[in-house]
Amino acid sequence: MAKKDKAAGASGGASGSVRDALRVTADGPASVPTDATPVGPTSKAEAAERLASIGTELHDLQEALYAESARSVLLVLQGMDTSGKGGTIEHVVGLMNPQGVRIASFKAPTKAELRHDFLWRVRRQLPVAGQIGVFDRSHYEDVLVVRVNELVAEDVWRDRYEQINEFEAEVAAAGATVVKCFLHISADEQKERLLARLDDPAKQWKYNPGDVDVRTRWSAYQQAYADALTSCHTDIAPWYVIPADRKWYRNWAVASLLLETLRELAPVVPGPTYDVTAERARLTEADPIS
Amino acid sequence: MAKKDKAAGASGGASGSVRDALRVTADGPASVPTDATPVGPTSKAEAAERLASIGTELHDLQEALYAESARSVLLVLQGMDTSGKGGTIEHVVGLMNPQGVRIASFKAPTKAELRHDFLWRVRRQLPVAGQIGVFDRSHYEDVLVVRVNELVAEDVWRDRYEQINEFEAEVAAAGATVVKCFLHISADEQKERLLARLDDPAKQWKYNPGDVDVRTRWSAYQQAYADALTSCHTDIAPWYVIPADRKWYRNWAVASLLLETLRELAPVVPGPTYDVTAERARLTEADPIS
Repeated sequence: MAKKDKAAGASGGASGSVRDALRVTADGPASVPTDATPVGPTSKAEAAERLASIGTELHDLQEALYAESARSVLLVLQGMDTSGKGGTIEHVVGLMNPQGVRIASFKAPTKAELRHDFLWRVRRQLPVAGQIGVFDRSHYEDVLVVRVNELVAEDVWRDRYEQINEFEAEVAAAGATVVKCFLHISADEQKERLLARLDDPAKQWKYNPGDVDVRTRWSAYQQAYADALTSCHTDIAPWYVIPADRKWYRNWAVASLLLETLRELAPVVPGPTYDVTAERARLTEADPIS
Repeated sequence: MAKKDKAAGASGGASGSVRDALRVTADGPASVPTDATPVGPTSKAEAAERLASIGTELHDLQEALYAESARSVLLVLQGMDTSGKGGTIEHVVGLMNPQGVRIASFKAPTKAELRHDFLWRVRRQLPVAGQIGVFDRSHYEDVLVVRVNELVAEDVWRDRYEQINEFEAEVAAAGATVVKCFLHISADEQKERLLARLDDPAKQWKYNPGDVDVRTRWSAYQQAYADALTSCHTDIAPWYVIPADRKWYRNWAVASLLLETLRELAPVVPGPTYDVTAERARLTEADPIS
């Protein structure tokens, strides 16, 4: 009973799941307004309240996943500059015990990395059983910035969609549940956020003139995202479009996706593999300390 | 003025620093009661209140360290089973932005790791500039469990004290401030905690019968810790003895050591390396979006 109420609370109503509401459609992200609230809270205050209770449950489920130590979760965060990948890590991933979380940030590849297959450095950062892995950018950069900047020929990046699907199927088969989130912001919102960085001396270090160069190719990036999301949206590794103009909605949505995922996994804390009574005796009557 | 008040708040009085109060002495940890409160709060409620305000400041200083991206901090956590290494990570390290934290947990080495020098796997986990690295156990295991279980000859582990001192000097020279904490609990407190794990089905998975085997060698371990702490206590990489029978004191103490360390480092958020006015114009009058 209590469990059912909780479920309704997280998904924004008994009627449907957050995953169903946010899963990318064949139209791609363009059909989703960046300030939409298709499911869940409709105000900042409501979102904050819900996020707190989601946090408690996420924390417990993550501990169980860690204790079970058999399966993992991989959260992939993608989005334009300022879309809130870092903020999501701080405010959503930060709700969980840092011991069970593994965060990998993928910057422009080094020369050494470029001499390997594009998936090489990604495989090295996969979560192990029991962990929640978080990718701040990912292998998708190899069909996004690489495509827009024409760093490889078209047939090379096009082939990567299939390579990515095979890779993610392999990751899933190895026990990871893959949750891919596109943090979807508008060009206007990006402008506001870039200006906010420029105007606040405490934030100026976050501003990179290169971000404006990237911005000049806004529509090319949107097209690249649309193609990547629709080409690499599989049952086993679906893409979710997170309306991200509002930070509170973004945080609630990603936290809720994680929560639904962990509830479905329903990790089980393993029972004792030893004799509890005998161990109790070892520690009391026969305390071996010396 | 405000800064000075804050400093007093964290160190438990204007009179001295937490680092001074907790630094190991030539007598080793045995001279420190495991339930002592030599500095700082004397009640759970007071500790909780202080920890919250320490958390806020830690968070801001860590962001500045990350922004500065020139230096790092390495927090080494050592202690007997149940001494609270995991709890410290959850409650102290968890106060900071997970993006700037790198946690490494050192279990028994694998066969492949054993074919390398004992410091090999440790070097690979060092924090990079801007990060706070956390070692959950560390290279010290190679003069603790390795010594007690006689896994190598005495001259081999004895030589390691000097090797460790040289290694830590090298790490410090490369820009890391090393903070080493021995979580100091009593044998009685360990017994209570082990029994608590046995008695709570939700915690039974944390109980490992091997921990009781280790417990049989309690005094050998205490001796190994005393020698390691006094032999590897240097100006550049000091050891702190954290009375850890009370979890609230342990958390406050480790958080305060980190806070003092970061305050002293006083990381500076870098100013803009670009022309703010020109960038503003690029984003407004000449918004290049397409």
